[in-house]
Amino acid sequence: MPKTMKATVFVESGKIELREKPVPEVGPLDALLRITTTTICGTDVHIMKGEYPVAAGLTIGHEPVGVIERLGSSVKGYHEGQRVIAGAITPSGWSNACLCGRCSQDGAGTKHGWRPMGGWRFGNTIDGCQAEYVLVPDAMTNLAPVPDELTDEQVLMCPDIMSTGFSGAESGKVHIGDTVAVFAQGPIGLCATAGAKLMGATTIIAVDRVPERLAIARRLGADHLVDFSRVNPVQEIMRLTDGRGVDVAIEALGTQATFESAMRVLRPGGTLSSLGVYSTDLTIPYDAFAAGLGDHTIVTTLCPGGKERMRRLMEVIANGRLDLKPLVTHRFTLDQIVEAYDLFSHQRDGVMKVAITP
Amino acid sequence: MPKTMKATVFVESGKIELREKPVPEVGPLDALLRITTTTICGTDVHIMKGEYPVAAGLTIGHEPVGVIERLGSSVKGYHEGQRVIAGAITPSGWSNACLCGRCSQDGAGTKHGWRPMGGWRFGNTIDGCQAEYVLVPDAMTNLAPVPDELTDEQVLMCPDIMSTGFSGAESGKVHIGDTVAVFAQGPIGLCATAGAKLMGATTIIAVDRVPERLAIARRLGADHLVDFSRVNPVQEIMRLTDGRGVDVAIEALGTQATFESAMRVLRPGGTLSSLGVYSTDLTIPYDAFAAGLGDHTIVTTLCPGGKERMRRLMEVIANGRLDLKPLVTHRFTLDQIVEAYDLFSHQRDGVMKVAITP
Amino acid sequence: MPKTMKATVFVESGKIELREKPVPEVGPLDALLRITTTTICGTDVHIMKGEYPVAAGLTIGHEPVGVIERLGSSVKGYHEGQRVIAGAITPSGWSNACLCGRCSQDGAGTKHGWRPMGGWRFGNTIDGCQAEYVLVPDAMTNLAPVPDELTDEQVLMCPDIMSTGFSGAESGKVHIGDTVAVFAQGPIGLCATAGAKLMGATTIIAVDRVPERLAIARRLGADHLVDFSRVNPVQEIMRLTDGRGVDVAIEALGTQATFESAMRVLRPGGTLSSLGVYSTDLTIPYDAFAAGLGDHTIVTTLCPGGKERMRRLMEVIANGRLDLKPLVTHRFTLDQIVEAYDLFSHQRDGVMKVAITP
Amino acid sequence: MPKTMKATVFVESGKIELREKPVPEVGPLDALLRITTTTICGTDVHIMKGEYPVAAGLTIGHEPVGVIERLGSSVKGYHEGQRVIAGAITPSGWSNACLCGRCSQDGAGTKHGWRPMGGWRFGNTIDGCQAEYVLVPDAMTNLAPVPDELTDEQVLMCPDIMSTGFSGAESGKVHIGDTVAVFAQGPIGLCATAGAKLMGATTIIAVDRVPERLAIARRLGADHLVDFSRVNPVQEIMRLTDGRGVDVAIEALGTQATFESAMRVLRPGGTLSSLGVYSTDLTIPYDAFAAGLGDHTIVTTLCPGGKERMRRLMEVIANGRLDLKPLVTHRFTLDQIVEAYDLFSHQRDGVMKVAITP
Repeated sequence: MPKTMKATVFVESGKIELREKPVPEVGPLDALLRITTTTICGTDVHIMKGEYPVAAGLTIGHEPVGVIERLGSSVKGYHEGQRVIAGAITPSGWSNACLCGRCSQDGAGTKHGWRPMGGWRFGNTIDGCQAEYVLVPDAMTNLAPVPDELTDEQVLMCPDIMSTGFSGAESGKVHIGDTVAVFAQGPIGLCATAGAKLMGATTIIAVDRVPERLAIARRLGADHLVDFSRVNPVQEIMRLTDGRGVDVAIEALGTQATFESAMRVLRPGGTLSSLGVYSTDLTIPYDAFAAGLGDHTIVTTLCPGGKERMRRLMEVIANGRLDLKPLVTHRFTLDQIVEAYDLFSHQRDGVMKVAITP
Repeated sequence: MPKTMKATVFVESGKIELREKPVPEVGPLDALLRITTTTICGTDVHIMKGEYPVAAGLTIGHEPVGVIERLGSSVKGYHEGQRVIAGAITPSGWSNACLCGRCSQDGAGTKHGWRPMGGWRFGNTIDGCQAEYVLVPDAMTNLAPVPDELTDEQVLMCPDIMSTGFSGAESGKVHIGDTVAVFAQGPIGLCATAGAKLMGATTIIAVDRVPERLAIARRLGADHLVDFSRVNPVQEIMRLTDGRGVDVAIEALGTQATFESAMRVLRPGGTLSSLGVYSTDLTIPYDAFAAGLGDHTIVTTLCPGGKERMRRLMEVIANGRLDLKPLVTHRFTLDQIVEAYDLFSHQRDGVMKVAITP
Repeated sequence: MPKTMKATVFVESGKIELREKPVPEVGPLDALLRITTTTICGTDVHIMKGEYPVAAGLTIGHEPVGVIERLGSSVKGYHEGQRVIAGAITPSGWSNACLCGRCSQDGAGTKHGWRPMGGWRFGNTIDGCQAEYVLVPDAMTNLAPVPDELTDEQVLMCPDIMSTGFSGAESGKVHIGDTVAVFAQGPIGLCATAGAKLMGATTIIAVDRVPERLAIARRLGADHLVDFSRVNPVQEIMRLTDGRGVDVAIEALGTQATFESAMRVLRPGGTLSSLGVYSTDLTIPYDAFAAGLGDHTIVTTLCPGGKERMRRLMEVIANGRLDLKPLVTHRFTLDQIVEAYDLFSHQRDGVMKVAITP
Repeated sequence: MPKTMKATVFVESGKIELREKPVPEVGPLDALLRITTTTICGTDVHIMKGEYPVAAGLTIGHEPVGVIERLGSSVKGYHEGQRVIAGAITPSGWSNACLCGRCSQDGAGTKHGWRPMGGWRFGNTIDGCQAEYVLVPDAMTNLAPVPDELTDEQVLMCPDIMSTGFSGAESGKVHIGDTVAVFAQGPIGLCATAGAKLMGATTIIAVDRVPERLAIARRLGADHLVDFSRVNPVQEIMRLTDGRGVDVAIEALGTQATFESAMRVLRPGGTLSSLGVYSTDLTIPYDAFAAGLGDHTIVTTLCPGGKERMRRLMEVIANGRLDLKPLVTHRFTLDQIVEAYDLFSHQRDGVMKVAITP
C-alpha cells in the first residue's frame, strides 16, 4: 500500500483541488477503503462554493464504493479485499441519539450524545471519499458488503441519493392509495418519486421544469408531470386533486418557493416531508397552515445511514425494484475531478450524476 | 319546551349580546341539549373581537354540558333526560377525513370529504352553546354520557381545554423518560403540562410569567418553572437540559415568539407540537432548523372530538388522574355573559376559566 | 322498481338456494343498490357448509358492485343511478370502535360500542348481496362511487379480496427492503403478495402448491416461489434468507400448519400478519416463539371497509398499479348461483374467482 | 486490583455456588465494573433449577450497579471510579438488529446480524454480575452514569425489572384513557402496572392472589384488584369493563393460564402484551381470538437495554415519578448468595426483591 494518495480538498470559497495527502492511519474501530467509484453531490457543490463551511484542506465527498484495504484491530466480521459501500452518514451506533433511532443526529463524544447532523462525517467533519482511499469510522456499524452481481454504478446512488430520496417518502409515511406531490426532480427528487411509488402511492405528481427530468420522473413512477415554468404548480395540483390537496408533499430542493408550494397543496391532516438543504429562514404561510389548526405535519430528514440501510437499498436494486443507472450520465477519472465539478455544478450537458473512478 | 331561548350572539367586531332566538328544530340525526353549564374559550374572545370571522347573529360557544331534551328520529342509544357532553369538535363520523382518522378536518358535504377545521362547527359554522339550548349534529358520533359521580364543573374542561391540551402531548408522541417544555400556561398549556405528565414525561419545563399559572403548572406536574419575564427561556431551557434541548416542545399560545422559542430548544430529532391559533405567517429560524437537516417534526393539532374522546377524558377525571376544578375560578349565569366576557377577555382577577350556567 | 327479487339464501348446512324475497324497505340512513356484479368468497363457502353459522333464510354474499336505486331520506352526497361499490365490511362510522379507528369491530348498538367482527354485516347479520338488490346500511359511510373508466370486474375484488389481502401487508407494517413470506396463494394470498410488493418489500416468497397460483404470484411480485408439496417450506425459506428468517410472514389460509410455518420462519422482532379464518384453537410453538422473548408480533386483520378504503383501492387499479382481472376466471348469471358455488367450492377447472351478474 | 474474585456460578441443575475466579481481562471495547449492588431475578432461579440452560461454570446474574474499575483502550467518554449501571441486555449497538431498533435481538457476530435474545449476554452467554467484578461488553453502548443523588438500591430495578415491566405497557401502546389489565403482580408485573399508570391508563386492573402484592399494586396505580383465588378473573374483568374487555392486557408470569386469561379479556382490536418467559407451547383459544378476525395484536418484549434506556429509567426515579425501594425487602452480602437464592426461589418471608452487596 502506498504512503500517499490523491484527494480532492476544499481550498477556499470557490476552489477545490486534487492534492497528494498521506494515506490515513487505521484506528482500532476503523476500516480503510480503496475507493473504486464515487460521485459528486449537490451538497459538495455548496461546500465548494463556500455556502456550507468546512475546514480548508478537508477531503470532500461522501458517497463511497470501494474495497476494504485494511481493518482496524477491533473490527470483526469483514475481510480485506471485500467490496463494500458505506452510507454518506456514518453513525457510531452507540450514542444516545443512535439508541433513540436517530442515527443521523449522532452525538458520539458529546456529554449527552446528540449533535445536529452529527452522523454526517465524511467530507464534513472528517476526510471524505473523493480520493484514492477513505477511512470509514465505526466500521462495523457502517460497512455493507456489495452483492457480487451488482456493479459499482448500480450501487453508487445508495450512500446518499437513494437513501435521502426514499426517506422523503418514508418520513411522509406514504400509504397505499396516497396522492403525493414531489417538488423538484433532481436526483434526490427523482428518488423521492421512486420511493413514493415503492411505498404504494397511487397518484404521484412530479414538479420540475426540465423536460428530461420530468421524463425520468415519468419512468420512475410519476402519474402527472407539472412543468412549473408553464403552469402555476399550486393551482395545477389543486385542480388535479379536485380541490382536496395531496396527502404527502415532498420538498426536494431547499427553497422558500418549493417549501411554500408544498405547504399550499397539502390537504388538512397531510404531511410535508422536507429533504432540501435551506440557506435562509423559512416562512410558513398563515392561510395554508390553517392558522395552526390544520393537523399538519412538517418533517425533515437527513439521509439515513448505517449498514442495514445500505443492505436494504442494495436489495431494492438487486431484486429489480428500481434501476437508477440512467441517472449516471457522465464518467470521469479522479484526475479530472475539477472538470467534473465544473460540469456538475453548472448542470451542463444534461448531467444528472457523475461517476468518478480513482 | 319553550319556543324561544336566550343565546349569546356575535353582533359585530367587539360586540356580543344575549338575544332571544327560536329553539332549533331537531333533524333526524340531531339531538337538542338543554345546556346546564358552559364556559368561554380564548377562541371565543378572538371571535368577539372580530379576529376570527363568524357570521353576524351566530350563537357562539363550543363547550357544552347539558341534558338531552329531544332526540332526532334516527338517533338510537340515548334517552331524553340523559346528562351528556359533546366535544368542541363535532365530526360527522362518515366523511373521508373521519375514515382516515382525521375527524377534526371533517369535510362532510364536500365532494372529497375534507375541509380545514371542518369538524369545528359549534359557534363557528353552526349555532353554539352559550345559550339555553344547543343542537348537536351527528348526535350518535358526538354525545357522551356523563358518569353520575361527576359534576358539571368536573367535566367542563373535557370538550375543549383538556382535549386540546392533552393532544399537545399526544401529537408530540411523548414517551416515558422524555424531557418536555410547554410554552405558555394558560388553561390549554396547563392541560398540555398535565398531559405530558400523564404520558410519562420525566422532566417537564413550564414557561409563563404569571406566578399563579406557574404555581398551578407545578401542581399539575411541571418539574421546572421558567418565568420568561426574568430569564431568557431558551437559554434557561438549554441550561436545564445540559445543552441537549428537549425531546418535545409544546407551543400553547399562538405567537411567533413562543413558536420560535419552541424551535430553538428542540433537540435534533425532536418534535414541536403546536396548539396555538396563529394570526400571522410563521418564521422557522434557519439555524434552529439545522438548515432542514435536523430530523425535526413540527405538528399542529386541532382539538380532538367525538364521544369516545370525551368518554376517555371523563375517565381520566373520574379515576382521579387529574383534577381541573381549580381552573374554574369564576361563575356566572347566562344573563351575565357580557360581564363574563369582559372579565375573561381582560384576564382580570386571576381568572383562569369561568363557568356559565343558563 | 319490482316488489320482489331473487336472492341467494342459506337454507341449512350444505344447502343454499335462489329464492324470491321482498325488495327491502329503505331506512333513512340506507341506500338500496341494484347489484350489477358480485362474487363468491371462501367465507361464503364456509357459510354454505355450515362451518360459520348464519340464520336460515339469510341472503349471503358481501362483495357488491351496483347502481344506487334509492337513497334514504337522510342520505346526502349521492344520486340515484350512480355506480358504486361498498366494502364487505360496512361500519357505522359512529361507534366507539370506529372512533378508535377499529371500524371492523364496530359495535354500533351495544352499550360500549364494540362487537367482535361487528362491522361485517352483509351476509352475516343482515341480508347480503348475492341478489338482485341489497340494502347498504350507513350509506354515507360506505358508498364509494366507481370511476367511469373502470369496469365492474375491475373493481370486483375491492370490497373484500384486495382490501383483506393488502391489509396483510399493511398490518405487517412492511417497509422498503423487507423480506416477506406469504403462505397460501389463493385470491387473498395473491393480494397479500401484491400488497407486499406495493409497500416496498424487496424479497417476496410465495408459498403454495398449485402451479397456476404460484405463476400468478410471480406476476404479482413474488421473487421466490416455494411449492410446499415438493420442499419443506420452513427449511426452504430459512435457506433463502441465509438462516435469518423473514421480516414479515403473512398467513392467508387459516390452518395450524400455515400459522405455525409462518411463526417458524419469522426473524426475531418480526411480525406474523394473519388473515386466515381459523376453525380451531391455534398453537404457538415454544421454540419458534423464543419462549416469549423474541420481540415477536402476531397481528390479525379483518377486511378494512368504508368508502375511503374503497376509493383508495379503486385508485390503485385506475392508476395501473395492479391488475386483478386475471383472477376472474369464470362468469355466471345469478340464476346459475348454485352451479357457481359448486364449481368454486370444489376449486374445479382452475377457478380463482367467479363473477356473478344478476 | 486483585487477580481473583468471588463469583456465583452455575454448577449443575439445582446447584449454584460461590467460587473464586480470575478477574477478567479488559478488551478494547470493554469496561470492568466493580459491583457494589446486584440482585436476583426470577430468570436466575430458572437457570439455577436447570430450566433455562447455561454452561456449567458460568457466572450468573444480570442486574449490575457498580463502579468503573478499568476501561478498554477504545472506550471514550467515561472515567475510572465513575458510578454506573448497565442493562440486563447489553447490545452491541452495531448489529443489523440494533440498526433496526431491535437491540434485544442483537446478532453481533452472525452473518446477518440477528440472534434470538442475542442482546442478553450477562449470565447467559458471558459471565454475569453476581460477583465482585463484571466485564461489560460494548461499554460505550451500555454504561449509564448514575446521578449522585440516587442510591444503589434506588436504581437496582432499572437494569431489568423496571425496563421489562415498563416495556409491557410500551409495547402495548397504552394511550390516555385506556383500560389495562395486568396478570401477575410479581416485581415485573408491578412495574408493568406502574408503567401503564405512567403512560396514561385510566383504569388499571391488577390480578394476583398475594394480598401484599395486590396492596403494592394499589400503591403503584391499580384501580381495581382482582384476587384470582377468590373470583374468576376473566369474568370479573368482563364485569368491570361492562362486557367490553380491556384495551391492553399485560401478561407478566409466563403460563398458559395467564396468557389465555389475557386473551379472553381483550376487546376486539386490543393488544396482548406478553412479558412472561414460557416453558411450553402456548394455545390461543379459537373463540377469544374471534377465529382470527378480531384485529388482535399479540406482542412479546425482551427487556430493553442500552445506556439511553437506563438514563431514562433513572430519570423516572430521580424526578419522583416512581419509587421502587419498597420492592427491596431483603438484603444479603455476596457471601450469603446461596442463602439469598434459597429465600428468593421459595418466595419466603414476603420477599419481593433482594439486594446483594459484594
